[in-house]
Amino acid sequence: MKELVESIRNKVFEALPEPARASRPELAEYARMLREYPQRGGKMLRGALVLLTARAYGSDEAALAVAAAIELFQNWVLIHDDIEDDSEERRGGPALQRLWPLPLALNAGDGLHALMWRVLVEAGARRKIMQEFVRLIETTAAGQHLDLSWVQQGRFDLNADDYLEMVRKKAAYYTAVAPLRLGALAAGQLPHLSFTSAGLDLGAAFQIIDDALNLEGDPAEYGKEIAGDLWEGKRTLILIDYLSNAPAQERERAEELLRLPRAQKEAAEVAWLHERILASGAVGRARRTAEQLAAPALEELQEVFATLPNPEAARQAIDLLSGLVERRA
Amino acid sequence: MKELVESIRNKVFEALPEPARASRPELAEYARMLREYPQRGGKMLRGALVLLTARAYGSDEAALAVAAAIELFQNWVLIHDDIEDDSEERRGGPALQRLWPLPLALNAGDGLHALMWRVLVEAGARRKIMQEFVRLIETTAAGQHLDLSWVQQGRFDLNADDYLEMVRKKAAYYTAVAPLRLGALAAGQLPHLSFTSAGLDLGAAFQIIDDALNLEGDPAEYGKEIAGDLWEGKRTLILIDYLSNAPAQERERAEELLRLPRAQKEAAEVAWLHERILASGAVGRARRTAEQLAAPALEELQEVFATLPNPEAARQAIDLLSGLVERRA
Repeated sequence: MKELVESIRNKVFEALPEPARASRPELAEYARMLREYPQRGGKMLRGALVLLTARAYGSDEAALAVAAAIELFQNWVLIHDDIEDDSEERRGGPALQRLWPLPLALNAGDGLHALMWRVLVEAGARRKIMQEFVRLIETTAAGQHLDLSWVQQGRFDLNADDYLEMVRKKAAYYTAVAPLRLGALAAGQLPHLSFTSAGLDLGAAFQIIDDALNLEGDPAEYGKEIAGDLWEGKRTLILIDYLSNAPAQERERAEELLRLPRAQKEAAEVAWLHERILASGAVGRARRTAEQLAAPALEELQEVFATLPNPEAARQAIDLLSGLVERRA
Repeated sequence: MKELVESIRNKVFEALPEPARASRPELAEYARMLREYPQRGGKMLRGALVLLTARAYGSDEAALAVAAAIELFQNWVLIHDDIEDDSEERRGGPALQRLWPLPLALNAGDGLHALMWRVLVEAGARRKIMQEFVRLIETTAAGQHLDLSWVQQGRFDLNADDYLEMVRKKAAYYTAVAPLRLGALAAGQLPHLSFTSAGLDLGAAFQIIDDALNLEGDPAEYGKEIAGDLWEGKRTLILIDYLSNAPAQERERAEELLRLPRAQKEAAEVAWLHERILASGAVGRARRTAEQLAAPALEELQEVFATLPNPEAARQAIDLLSGLVERRA
């Protein structure tokens, strides 16, 4: 697995521009901006899942470029997400728009987006692979619109189904469905239909656990700001559950706080809400929901992978998929 | 020409999502955001240039999708530009991030970017066309980085060559070079080398004239805020020329104003600078520079087009190219 991640990382850095080769100091700075998030590491789970799935199907020749491209997707989308969410931290460092002015960071995200397509085009990726990338960007952007519009419009009339629809689009598709489908396509095979249904459930479970870690993760391991979701006013399943069970007065106080932009929130108030949510049992209930989504999805995927020609790669892919919902950081 | 523009417009709108078909009200709103800039019209110069160039080469079958894609490029890049420049107006209406919260507008730009690739992928565009799109996005983003970094860092140690390098990357490549090259590629031919050299000069002239119109255009025809470049602190050729010829005290006052963010600029001070620039003769000098860049470039392109199999389309393409540097809005 370490070797696998290293090979994807090399492919990503092969594509990134070298500051030393820039024609002007400003463009060297631009190259450094494009490299900033990739350089911080990242677990490359999605790229590894592409490669292992392709191997399980019997051929990973075309998969390395696809794996690098989905990691480049992750990097440019995180740059734009961090601006959209007014986030503080990413992978243990300041968000890009806190190191450089926001307009430069936004533009660097677009440059990295183009680089993602460059990797695919230069590798001669087949049309079905290109179509899958279009779909994954469109799906993620639609989910991001839901997430952002709820925050921007101060909406709290949301239930668990609203959250699940948002998170399937915003996170589950590109985290689980797309890598599985791309792995099959890179091996020249048609993706199994279960990749979509089970991938959406498993990916939603992944995001629920991410939301839980945001509230109770180990600050030393978790690469983002603890309770950042509260600062950003994110409508998580945990928050929706907590609010629907909170006494009227407490709910009112929480919603008032969540409606404020980050700069107007007081740390003591955020700490109060954080403590109330942890005391409410909502995190544990969300983890159980994640478990209920993940268990049958993993079983279904295990059955599909059991039919594939390379059992060793299939086992590693299933390990990785299980790891998505068992992680602590 | 009107029919041509209509056909590109239809192809663009065919690709855009329909609000009425969205699964939730939030996603209908998202679809409306994607349609906002395309709906305001725009002259579709770049798309028309792709189509006419392909016709001049003898085959425009594959060109319509490419023309629509370059117009979609223009639309998503304007959404992001308007955020990056903190612009007020676009095509006679408020900038997208003034109608919706900035995070939603940024995300809609990404959605439109994906749609651009969808049009190309669905049309089965050839690899060389995909490569040209990657190049045009990368070139534009590098130029945009130069432009933005000079504003953000309050830099005034710039000369005409710095401006020309920036503007070739930021505007000339996608306005002239890429449409000419894409037209040839869509017709299955290799682009003439003059398309790059002459296109860069003609496109730079186009941008210089745009800068001039920003200062002395007819507010009824010009779709953006008059003197918006001063509010945004843009380092135009006109400004660089004006500053280098202004008395020390005046220059100091101008630079102090230009360094301020939009919200801190006073209208009276901007009006003062606007008046001083108009009185300095810098606009006329910039127009002459544009003329000196455009004339030989147009001549060179005319010679190339004279060798192509469809003289009627070639004549229309040359008319359009001449129009780029003769426009009043």
